[in-house]
Amino acid sequence: MDRKEHRYCVIMCGGIGSRFWPYSRTRLPKQFIDFLGTGRTLLQMSFDRISGIVPIKNILVITNERYADLVREQLPELADDQVLCEPARRNTAPCIAWATWHIAARDPEASMIVAPADHMITREERFVDSVLTGLDFVESRDVLLTLGIEPSRPETGYGYIQVGDPVEGEISKVKTFTEKPDIELAKVFLASGEFFWNSGIFLWKASTIREALRNWTPDIAAVFDSTDAATYLSVESERRFISEAFPACMNISIDYAVMERAQNVYVETVTFGWSDVGTWSALYDLSPKNSDANVTQNCNVLAYNCHGNIFAVRGEKLIVADGLEDYIIADADGVLLICPKSREQKIKQMVTDARLKFGDKYE
Amino acid sequence: MDRKEHRYCVIMCGGIGSRFWPYSRTRLPKQFIDFLGTGRTLLQMSFDRISGIVPIKNILVITNERYADLVREQLPELADDQVLCEPARRNTAPCIAWATWHIAARDPEASMIVAPADHMITREERFVDSVLTGLDFVESRDVLLTLGIEPSRPETGYGYIQVGDPVEGEISKVKTFTEKPDIELAKVFLASGEFFWNSGIFLWKASTIREALRNWTPDIAAVFDSTDAATYLSVESERRFISEAFPACMNISIDYAVMERAQNVYVETVTFGWSDVGTWSALYDLSPKNSDANVTQNCNVLAYNCHGNIFAVRGEKLIVADGLEDYIIADADGVLLICPKSREQKIKQMVTDARLKFGDKYE
Repeated sequence: MDRKEHRYCVIMCGGIGSRFWPYSRTRLPKQFIDFLGTGRTLLQMSFDRISGIVPIKNILVITNERYADLVREQLPELADDQVLCEPARRNTAPCIAWATWHIAARDPEASMIVAPADHMITREERFVDSVLTGLDFVESRDVLLTLGIEPSRPETGYGYIQVGDPVEGEISKVKTFTEKPDIELAKVFLASGEFFWNSGIFLWKASTIREALRNWTPDIAAVFDSTDAATYLSVESERRFISEAFPACMNISIDYAVMERAQNVYVETVTFGWSDVGTWSALYDLSPKNSDANVTQNCNVLAYNCHGNIFAVRGEKLIVADGLEDYIIADADGVLLICPKSREQKIKQMVTDARLKFGDKYE
Repeated sequence: MDRKEHRYCVIMCGGIGSRFWPYSRTRLPKQFIDFLGTGRTLLQMSFDRISGIVPIKNILVITNERYADLVREQLPELADDQVLCEPARRNTAPCIAWATWHIAARDPEASMIVAPADHMITREERFVDSVLTGLDFVESRDVLLTLGIEPSRPETGYGYIQVGDPVEGEISKVKTFTEKPDIELAKVFLASGEFFWNSGIFLWKASTIREALRNWTPDIAAVFDSTDAATYLSVESERRFISEAFPACMNISIDYAVMERAQNVYVETVTFGWSDVGTWSALYDLSPKNSDANVTQNCNVLAYNCHGNIFAVRGEKLIVADGLEDYIIADADGVLLICPKSREQKIKQMVTDARLKFGDKYE
């Protein structure tokens, strides 16, 4: 059998994207939105990218059950057993654990790509090259590999990976993982050349990550070991098992549970364009701008004395604006947000305030 | 016959209110909007006010034919022959001329109140007293009477009337009419105590204004004299006549055509609350404010670091705003406007720009 047949991809698609509120909503998170107006959503672009690397039948999307219909609608290529529906939100460790046990039941020789559905990647041919190189690396070793992005600015919104001893090509041992640094530290990181952005894209064999989970987060591994492989081979029995077992898992990220603790962790430094599209400012930076440095998403805008804004509207609408500088103007589904880009970290609080004051309908 | 039976009111209801765009639109001008959230539109409030003074059957609404259905919907009390539909926009002189000939055909002894549909009046009991006093005055004389509003600030958006010799009570000869002054002159006007805002509310006998029109604007008078009284007594024959005759009239205001030129013009100074609700700032000034001096029209607002704004939305919507000072935020029927109050005089230009760039749909 061609090695490619043993390659699987897990697209993690359960986020709720509250930082793009009100454009991204609990009922339509950002991975389901065509953010760049290309005709494909972030999830669809992730699928397109991966389908050049692994067989389509080996692509799994793992999402919250409330988004199952959205996933099936946006990716009609997927069979029923390729959409794993989490009955509760439990962060990335239980999510990856389930996908791992599911894949290992199908194919004990499987290798895996784990990637978030809601990131943006440019220069995709480099992405393909890097992933293929990484897969070759992990398939011949019992190692965990993460992709590290060459930083282009002292970003304080990302985690960083410090590279250690080089192994081969662009692959090195990981020396440290670092949480989001302050600006001074981020500048030091950038200048050092040793620190890379943590992309959240992982490569490994199913057997390797399963052992790592058993070793570093035995509680979660025990949940998925509590049934036999046959359970994972039947959509119905798996669904029944997961509905009980999954909510019992600890809520913890794979980084915290495994990557920052395991000893066999490597990083492949890559040069494709990458953004987690984590904030309005990130989307602004990614997007083409007009001569006044304004960005327009899906709307007609007449702007006077306006500079550095991002206008995003769902549904046909004309925005006429005067005198706005560096604002987010977002309008969707009954909510209009007007907020300086510099205060976008307050948007989560605003969503909470809106819920407390006006109920769930604006979430 | 009770004198009241001879009293008529003409509510002028043909304006397009473009300064309140996008909240007020060509297809729904401001007189048809419940601007203060009271449950009654400006037109309905005008009707309510007047119906305490003249018999309901003597109230005429004169409007553009495109708004006839809106008028009938908002004022179901009116019979068919009480809604006069202009086939073209020709300013106030032809409008008042038609209403005058129409009323005079019905009742040669008629006296008339002429009032705009889209003004706001508070302390309405004073309004009733002033109008009754004014009607008594004009019914015993061949004079034209206008109501002058005691100014409360050096407003540059209104015309002013300078009072001359007092005649009786609050009624004086008019000395001069003055167009909108600059701020320095407005301050002098205010300090002098001789200048009053021109309310655009007129009182006179039908016979008196008809003679004045024949004298000062004979072209317009000739149009309405070109048929006999019977024409104005049949809805059908009047409609046929007007469809030809009205568009032929000069486009001119009653102020310019008659009031500023006639010699028998008087002013009654009044103390009721009055605003022409001519601008967003005027509406802001009229409206109740919250503790941050923000005004909210028909919408839920979560405001952070916001002060002195007016938020107006048609349709249910939540607005979340941060860092706006003295802005107009108006959202209706597919258009969102965000504009500093200090630049609201540019809104007309914005409407023009929107039409040129995106077509008529946003007018």
